[in-house]
Amino acid sequence: MKSGLGINVLMITRVIGFLLIVEGGFMFTGIPFSLYYCDKCYDLIYSGLITAGAGGLMMLIAWNPKNKNIGKREGYIIVSLTWVVISLFGTLPYLFSGAIPAFTNAFFETMSGFTTTGASILTDIESLPRGILFWRSLTHWIGGMGIIVLSVAILPVLGIGGMQLFVAEMPGIQPDKLHPRITQTAKRLWAIYLLLTVVQTALLLFGGMDLLNALCHTFGTVATGGFSTQNTSIAGYSPFIQYVIIIFMILAGTNFTLHYFALHGRFRRVWKNEEFRKYIYLFSIVTLLLTASLMLLRHEELELAFRESLFQVVSIITTTGYVSADYLLWPGILWMVIFLLMFVGGSAGSTGGGIKVVRQLLLFKNSGMELKRLVHPNALIPVRLNGKAVNQEIIFKVMAFFLIYIIIFAFGILVMSMLGLDFETAIGASAATLGNIGPGIGEVGPTGNYASIPVFGKWFLSFLMLLGRLELFTVLIILTPAFWKK
Amino acid sequence: MKSGLGINVLMITRVIGFLLIVEGGFMFTGIPFSLYYCDKCYDLIYSGLITAGAGGLMMLIAWNPKNKNIGKREGYIIVSLTWVVISLFGTLPYLFSGAIPAFTNAFFETMSGFTTTGASILTDIESLPRGILFWRSLTHWIGGMGIIVLSVAILPVLGIGGMQLFVAEMPGIQPDKLHPRITQTAKRLWAIYLLLTVVQTALLLFGGMDLLNALCHTFGTVATGGFSTQNTSIAGYSPFIQYVIIIFMILAGTNFTLHYFALHGRFRRVWKNEEFRKYIYLFSIVTLLLTASLMLLRHEELELAFRESLFQVVSIITTTGYVSADYLLWPGILWMVIFLLMFVGGSAGSTGGGIKVVRQLLLFKNSGMELKRLVHPNALIPVRLNGKAVNQEIIFKVMAFFLIYIIIFAFGILVMSMLGLDFETAIGASAATLGNIGPGIGEVGPTGNYASIPVFGKWFLSFLMLLGRLELFTVLIILTPAFWKK
Repeated sequence: MKSGLGINVLMITRVIGFLLIVEGGFMFTGIPFSLYYCDKCYDLIYSGLITAGAGGLMMLIAWNPKNKNIGKREGYIIVSLTWVVISLFGTLPYLFSGAIPAFTNAFFETMSGFTTTGASILTDIESLPRGILFWRSLTHWIGGMGIIVLSVAILPVLGIGGMQLFVAEMPGIQPDKLHPRITQTAKRLWAIYLLLTVVQTALLLFGGMDLLNALCHTFGTVATGGFSTQNTSIAGYSPFIQYVIIIFMILAGTNFTLHYFALHGRFRRVWKNEEFRKYIYLFSIVTLLLTASLMLLRHEELELAFRESLFQVVSIITTTGYVSADYLLWPGILWMVIFLLMFVGGSAGSTGGGIKVVRQLLLFKNSGMELKRLVHPNALIPVRLNGKAVNQEIIFKVMAFFLIYIIIFAFGILVMSMLGLDFETAIGASAATLGNIGPGIGEVGPTGNYASIPVFGKWFLSFLMLLGRLELFTVLIILTPAFWKK
Repeated sequence: MKSGLGINVLMITRVIGFLLIVEGGFMFTGIPFSLYYCDKCYDLIYSGLITAGAGGLMMLIAWNPKNKNIGKREGYIIVSLTWVVISLFGTLPYLFSGAIPAFTNAFFETMSGFTTTGASILTDIESLPRGILFWRSLTHWIGGMGIIVLSVAILPVLGIGGMQLFVAEMPGIQPDKLHPRITQTAKRLWAIYLLLTVVQTALLLFGGMDLLNALCHTFGTVATGGFSTQNTSIAGYSPFIQYVIIIFMILAGTNFTLHYFALHGRFRRVWKNEEFRKYIYLFSIVTLLLTASLMLLRHEELELAFRESLFQVVSIITTTGYVSADYLLWPGILWMVIFLLMFVGGSAGSTGGGIKVVRQLLLFKNSGMELKRLVHPNALIPVRLNGKAVNQEIIFKVMAFFLIYIIIFAFGILVMSMLGLDFETAIGASAATLGNIGPGIGEVGPTGNYASIPVFGKWFLSFLMLLGRLELFTVLIILTPAFWKK
């Protein structure tokens, strides 16, 4: 069946049905923790059955469509709808267990999980049943799995915001057909993702965490999510654990195709990647400046100042959002730096969100070139990335992306102000959800949460998380009338 | 004489020398007010003699250069240097009279005047000698004279930020040679500027102001400056006077070539200008929303709510910066709207500063088109302005302009935070000086001033005013190494 608009509805139903069955299956994985830690543990079983059942029903309805073709338009719809639908079903464990009784709150928390944002409406995380805490962190991990495939294999094909340039460099992948490309790429990326997960979990266990906490914090790290099982995030853990999390945040914020090269011993190829180099330079330089400032202004010891600086800087740049120190207690200029880092974002092809290092890099380079072009109006002065001239068309798309990002950010501030939030909180909430970071500034800062935001605000911020996570265009394009014309 | 870099230093000296003589001449015009209001009134005479004398000396040195050619590079240098040099000499009346004893403060106030910003370091304006107040407002008027010629005749030729498209529509002007074009255009524009000045002064006199106040407030209005002679800005004046100022702020924020058409009865041509229509729509719609909000939330009467809304909205959009109500006392969402309006700016070819209506218009339109382009990747979908397709190259330049504006704005926040300013004040000071508005938010809000900013901060903000006023590129290009290569 095709709709009157020429959209292959059956295939969309089929794909989303399949993904719901997968989601249901993931819900069952929390059952061991439910059984081990409590006696009343049917919530995850019920949720998993309903979710997988709904998915099965959808697949039955769309069992064997004549037309198996999934085009670009179906691609946009599947991607956007998937995040919404799995977030809707993902609320079930919260609702059944009563851990989050209000539907709005449960949806916010689930969307925050699947978009790897890490913004929470919970005021006492530690009071939640362990099985539910596991599910909460698992939403990050599932979201991260989706994102790396999306950003490396799907969005470049759809032609979103210059992505085709930044990540289409995985060897042996033919970008002509969507389906084989996704399968082939997904397997390699997930292998890397799984490897990171296993190694970090082992290291956290080695550092003294129990299995549940080790898994939850690993999920939150490799997906650059930020949900913790502790009310104080990572602040209460040992320096060893903090350093482990720092290293894996850095790895998770790196283009996953570079991990692929590194695992094949091609380190020169990794270092030749300009985005990677600038990403390393950026957090290193900012960390050194913050370390010196914390030592001077707050008389902290070298190691502590270094660890606090590095942790917060890496956590914000990669859009993870874990916290090991309340940066809002730092002198104004220092948390202003942290705030500005919210507009950097992870690397393209990583699980990190936000604007992305490579886009900011191109924007800064182009700004410099624009001055050169004024001096030599008749010369062709291209922006270079990895030593190669970048097509003007790509720069144009990157600038358009940034502009729409800023417009939505400003609109977000306006909506939050309209709901009565103060200046800092409105700015912080808009920046931290659109950038998929989690903690912002003001009342939604590192020690605050999103509990007190009005209901409408929670739905709006959930939408911002979705927009930011799907590189804006994937969602926005569906909202244009032109998209629905045959 | 040409410098080793091939720059015609003699002609630069000659032009700036000439402008200093003009500045000195303008200083003398304040003498009647000095004589009338005080007995110790030699400050303006001394200042004028020194300024004109220095200018004369410069012209003597560069009396009859063999090479009278002024190219683009000389153009950039003359424009940027002029604003700095006349601001340096413009401090003399403040320093000699002791009205502003500190050189940093005097320079900030003068730069704020000549860039038509209106940001002040004065805490008690009314205590200043009348002759000095006249000079202070006159710096606005001189600055405005410079700006309309610059934006209509000079910057388009230099190719700055898409200006060539927005304003090069004055009839009968040949853009091939810089010199005759400037003379011809300048005469027409100044006639309009003078007409606006005379009419507004007459109306303010009619409204009960004395000549000095009428002239000072007219200067501050038609130049979209914002310096008042009163500590409470325009708040203490009658509704009639407030409406007069509103109307002339609107006119001053309009493209001056449209005034030219209107004076020739070609009103259809005026209304066909899309930037003008969007400018009218924008402040009308925002005013209506604010009026309703003030009536609902602050229980103000219709006329007062309307007048307060219209005044503040028009004052901020046109970057004038006069104040008739303290918008920071309004509910958060309302002054957030005012804050966001700081990023609109006046029309291209007006005396208004900031990003400009037409640029924001193109940016918003292009953002919509970018989505359409994703739906139809092979179609050529141009942005249209005034019914005509706009070259991609222009959109590219406009986006680059906006990006550099945002980068400088963010850098400004960072520098202000580093000096210890709080979050709101740092943001407000950066936005209000770069946008040539004057009052911002926080401590530099409508009832505050820039007195408490540290010395380095005042110099930095003076630089932001210069950058914003000269459309960024005119100044930035001089700071690039490429500019100085032969």
